[in-house]
Amino acid sequence: MNPIEGHLPTRSPLHDILAPTGIAVIGASADPTKRGYKAMVGLIKDGYRGDIYPVNPKADLILGVKAWPSVTAIPGNPELALICTPAPTVPGLIAECGRRGIKGAVILASGFAEVGGEGAALEREMMAKAEAHGVRIIGPNTSGIFNLHHRINLLALDNVKPGDVGIISQSGNMLLSLALEAQHNGQVGFSTYVGPGNQSDIGFNDYLRYLGEDEHTRVATLYVEGFRDGRKFLEVARDVTAMKPVVVYKSGSTEQGQKAASSHTGALAGSYAMTVDLLRQSGVSVVQYSDEILPVAEGLGLLQKSRGKRVAVISDGGGQATIASDRLAEAGLELAELSEATRQKLREVLFPQASTVNPVDVAGSTDANPSLLATCMEIVAADDNVDSVFLVGMFGGYSIRFAESLLGDEMRGAEAMVDLSNATEKPLVIYSLYTPIKPPALRRLHEAGLPVYASIEQSVRVLAALGERGQYLAQSHGQSRETPVEARLELTAMFRQARAEGRDLFEYEAKQLLRDHGVDVPLELVVRNEAELAEAASRFAGESGETPLAMKVVSKDILHKSDAGGVMLNVVGEAAMQDAREAILESCMAYDANAEIEGVLVAPMAKKGVEVIVGVIRDPIFGPVLMFGLGGIFVEILEDVAFRAIPLSRHDARSMVEQIKAKRILEGVRGESAVDKEALVELLLKVSSIVAAYPDLKELDLNPVIVNADGYAVVDARVIVDRDSDATDKDARA
Amino acid sequence: MNPIEGHLPTRSPLHDILAPTGIAVIGASADPTKRGYKAMVGLIKDGYRGDIYPVNPKADLILGVKAWPSVTAIPGNPELALICTPAPTVPGLIAECGRRGIKGAVILASGFAEVGGEGAALEREMMAKAEAHGVRIIGPNTSGIFNLHHRINLLALDNVKPGDVGIISQSGNMLLSLALEAQHNGQVGFSTYVGPGNQSDIGFNDYLRYLGEDEHTRVATLYVEGFRDGRKFLEVARDVTAMKPVVVYKSGSTEQGQKAASSHTGALAGSYAMTVDLLRQSGVSVVQYSDEILPVAEGLGLLQKSRGKRVAVISDGGGQATIASDRLAEAGLELAELSEATRQKLREVLFPQASTVNPVDVAGSTDANPSLLATCMEIVAADDNVDSVFLVGMFGGYSIRFAESLLGDEMRGAEAMVDLSNATEKPLVIYSLYTPIKPPALRRLHEAGLPVYASIEQSVRVLAALGERGQYLAQSHGQSRETPVEARLELTAMFRQARAEGRDLFEYEAKQLLRDHGVDVPLELVVRNEAELAEAASRFAGESGETPLAMKVVSKDILHKSDAGGVMLNVVGEAAMQDAREAILESCMAYDANAEIEGVLVAPMAKKGVEVIVGVIRDPIFGPVLMFGLGGIFVEILEDVAFRAIPLSRHDARSMVEQIKAKRILEGVRGESAVDKEALVELLLKVSSIVAAYPDLKELDLNPVIVNADGYAVVDARVIVDRDSDATDKDARA
Repeated sequence: MNPIEGHLPTRSPLHDILAPTGIAVIGASADPTKRGYKAMVGLIKDGYRGDIYPVNPKADLILGVKAWPSVTAIPGNPELALICTPAPTVPGLIAECGRRGIKGAVILASGFAEVGGEGAALEREMMAKAEAHGVRIIGPNTSGIFNLHHRINLLALDNVKPGDVGIISQSGNMLLSLALEAQHNGQVGFSTYVGPGNQSDIGFNDYLRYLGEDEHTRVATLYVEGFRDGRKFLEVARDVTAMKPVVVYKSGSTEQGQKAASSHTGALAGSYAMTVDLLRQSGVSVVQYSDEILPVAEGLGLLQKSRGKRVAVISDGGGQATIASDRLAEAGLELAELSEATRQKLREVLFPQASTVNPVDVAGSTDANPSLLATCMEIVAADDNVDSVFLVGMFGGYSIRFAESLLGDEMRGAEAMVDLSNATEKPLVIYSLYTPIKPPALRRLHEAGLPVYASIEQSVRVLAALGERGQYLAQSHGQSRETPVEARLELTAMFRQARAEGRDLFEYEAKQLLRDHGVDVPLELVVRNEAELAEAASRFAGESGETPLAMKVVSKDILHKSDAGGVMLNVVGEAAMQDAREAILESCMAYDANAEIEGVLVAPMAKKGVEVIVGVIRDPIFGPVLMFGLGGIFVEILEDVAFRAIPLSRHDARSMVEQIKAKRILEGVRGESAVDKEALVELLLKVSSIVAAYPDLKELDLNPVIVNADGYAVVDARVIVDRDSDATDKDARA
Repeated sequence: MNPIEGHLPTRSPLHDILAPTGIAVIGASADPTKRGYKAMVGLIKDGYRGDIYPVNPKADLILGVKAWPSVTAIPGNPELALICTPAPTVPGLIAECGRRGIKGAVILASGFAEVGGEGAALEREMMAKAEAHGVRIIGPNTSGIFNLHHRINLLALDNVKPGDVGIISQSGNMLLSLALEAQHNGQVGFSTYVGPGNQSDIGFNDYLRYLGEDEHTRVATLYVEGFRDGRKFLEVARDVTAMKPVVVYKSGSTEQGQKAASSHTGALAGSYAMTVDLLRQSGVSVVQYSDEILPVAEGLGLLQKSRGKRVAVISDGGGQATIASDRLAEAGLELAELSEATRQKLREVLFPQASTVNPVDVAGSTDANPSLLATCMEIVAADDNVDSVFLVGMFGGYSIRFAESLLGDEMRGAEAMVDLSNATEKPLVIYSLYTPIKPPALRRLHEAGLPVYASIEQSVRVLAALGERGQYLAQSHGQSRETPVEARLELTAMFRQARAEGRDLFEYEAKQLLRDHGVDVPLELVVRNEAELAEAASRFAGESGETPLAMKVVSKDILHKSDAGGVMLNVVGEAAMQDAREAILESCMAYDANAEIEGVLVAPMAKKGVEVIVGVIRDPIFGPVLMFGLGGIFVEILEDVAFRAIPLSRHDARSMVEQIKAKRILEGVRGESAVDKEALVELLLKVSSIVAAYPDLKELDLNPVIVNADGYAVVDARVIVDRDSDATDKDARA
């Protein structure tokens, strides 16, 4: 078994609360339908070794434990209180807890902020007491917590066993579902569970950091409906994923789902595609389906990381080898090309009719000799072309299907696989048809910490997650995310002036901002009068001879320049430039007589190439985010775009360009050359740095940027100014 | 439980072979590692009621059954022989079987055509004997057969129970995998299994027809690596899907998988996307993942068909309601909008905090009263806006999670669900967190034939398959697939002449073919001399005034007209037309001095609109197939196209237009109007009819067709002539 990778060195105050030496159960009860009963049963049955203080004014004993009439009556010093009583009682109880020195309270009751109105007021009242008395709050409206290594099972879940999967879930049913799945499969155990509830005090990010620190947690598993402080989450996730895997299922992947989610939790849910990109950027393993959560968590927790995408498949049936090949390709993984030496070694142990081309098909060679599968795994694992090994087929079931006498050999095969998993740094992912009925050889693998999957599909998702995590740690994590740019005074002044005038940057200002920081924006001149036009004519004539020019109106009042007749293209020569300027001014005045016209922008016609879009938004949850995609229908219809939180690392920028489905177009189609991808990467990094340097920049839109084999040119640029960012200015405007 | 929908009325000769009154086991053995032992055990243990004749010259008794030294020595009249002996013995044994009156033989041995060379010769020899002696062959190189309702289990599979899922699988391991999954879940049973092997005699299509006829088979389930006669398969599938569901998993969905498949079966595997489209056109339920095969088969076999896409979700946890909503949307299903009357009825039975907007969240209302879930299902099932009902959550586990005392109420809930399933024509799809541990209420549902699924993902795939099948039967099946067009003599002659000249149709000929059959192809004239040019000038001037014209060279020797300078656009007026014609002729002569130039084509410039492509290919497996998609990158990069086998029904044509991902562009983006989709549908139907009427038409490519709100115009048309279709012509050319 792979050792636990490590833990965050810090220690959050949550440890005292989640691993307390004593627990007060407020509202403890002898009625089996009550949570105050369940919690008592959970603590007693699981053998919690701390002190238990049932609080119930109407009972002397609860389940054989002495009960206390009130919190203040408790003799000892419990660190945690579980409050099972209704919402209106909570603020008073929190004050009592504080006076008793209780550090944290788990509040099960609903009827707080999630119902709005009076509930929200009650939650505020509770938080005021909590802050006044130094009590940290888990919940309210939480399904509860467990910490099985400390035998704290406040949910009284049956049949959950201690293990190394930590869970934070915004759905109690999801926890239950994972627990039942684990019970059924018999493999996975759990460390700590927290239902964050309304997060009125302790939030998702705190819980994640706790799991990062927790020595019993090998992998953190999160079910998320919505993030509050997404930017902070990304930071914490980056810290934690450096130490151990973080698996996230994010619900609301569709509009329909988002609607369903927000109707019941009230949490904001951003664009799913963006959220997934940002999570992956922070090293999070995102799973798409709820029935993948546990298999992926198990695989990431137990197996070696894969250094790459090249998978060697060992199979004892051609049909399933084909299915495996299909699923691997769909997941972006490759069939490793086995070296000739490897193939020769396989030929030496297999029948002549076996296929030693990956996927390896043993073609009957193992029917009387199943441990040979382990030998084949060992042979391919030694090949430098192989990053991970995938066993597909009947292993574990040979002694059932063929002859009982094969059991000994099959057990030897299992031992050999265990030995191999300890000796190699490559992951061994094992799928068996016989997984559902758990025969002895598979049980042996289980015991040794080698997961055995129940379907090819699940196995491939695990392989993909292992590869993704390996790649993240090797390439992305630790890369500098800063490519600093210093704000320039004159450009900062430009933002200030725009804000004072209640407008965004003019196109030429936006371009100046970019150009001054080294972005390739073709020369453009704003012509305000005939003298400036003559000068422009000579500048462009001097630069590139009879360059065809584009001319566009500059006016804060005219947004749709073409509609206003404010654009003329392919203008050549000074005379034509004069005509064009007059025509533009005339049309624009006719379009809007009150428009304040700054002048006319003159620039060379755009070069040929692929149109891409670079955009920046400030997401309310995740902060500044960069978007990249191809222009036109790719963005508008196909939504084929990549997102990264700003600032970007070089790896982030590269991976954006590689991620989009339309990247084949960047690589040259219909006889076109490939575009200069590295130039694009530089552009993305530069934009990221500029955004970081100018906090007044709210949104940015470079659309289009033309990119070809020689580089790129920003053709149009729009910068939205944050008009709310400076209180002084706001007041001045008011 | 839903009754078995029906069976094909015919009766194939396979019934005698697959349900024989006696079986000869040739190569029967007492060695437990041999197939000849396994088969004997399977027949004896399962209690086969026909006669068993072990054939083994070296034994008197095998497993207590009298053995015979040879086939000819057998006293009775078995209809089937299972041949377990090596390949070289087979031809002789087949002859003996024939002489003994045996109607069919299952041949397990490999070493025939699949290994090529001598193996292929041996297979031919075997087939010669089989034909001479009237013995039908299953295999060779087959994993075997079973027919559990007749207690014939020649694979000696443990723990398979008789049921109504029939299986044809090109992979023996896949059968084993399904059998183990069924054993584990305890729900599904099987009727007949056949491994088609090399299909030297009886083929896939025969087996499918047999399952269509078999009264014990409720759903036919197929694992396919490659089709031989795909066109015939589509026909048989159309017949069978009218009576019962056919579930197909087709491997080789990726290039990597196709390579893996062809390396071991030798079967041709066409484009996966095309294959899926054609299968669906014939009513087949295609599943994408191997772990969906059994759940989807079970659901289609047992549940009512859904009349539409509108799903009502009843849940007892918001998180899972959200997941369900996401998966439904991804699968193209909708959350039904519940009527106000329905919501009122829900409000009457649920707590005030429950959400009666779909997904319905009972919000604790059922905690002490789980049978209320059945009441909610009944209420939403009665709503006309609802096509199917999806229960999501803890049902079956209330008595485990909350209090044992709830068991009675939970069982009443299960009964109510069974009653509802019998009373309603809408499917009830049930997912429970507790499915893995099979509590009593879920077992009761099982017994009554209501499947209970183990994940939301699986459930949604079942809902999607039910909806698709319901829609197919309502809309597509039975629609006339013929929209006859009669071939015209002069057009048939045109094909003949092209063939005689060893060329394809000229563009103007292709267009004439289309235009003469009522396809909208703008007027075009081929101008061969100045007089014809003058006439053309007046025709176009007369028709639409100063119409800008396009002019293109007509020459069989010039394929890339633009490269040769053979295209001039926006030509207006007779003088310009003359100049253009001269320029084209000059350029083309310079480009290829030997080119034979027919003339210059004159046509109005294309109208504005969306570019689409209509193509026809003759697939070696599936015959003539129509392709439709948007032009440019949609076809080339995104491969966003739809396929249908020719001839098409109107529903087929409509569904093609609806299927493509880019259909939003047809519906109008960026302020454009929606295109006339019905005109496109007419075009597709017309092309289908033309292809059916002219067998010499090998391929056709209308690219682009411009479509807008007013209709469409075929701008360019290419017709490839089948030069091999007529032996006389071939000889004449030679």
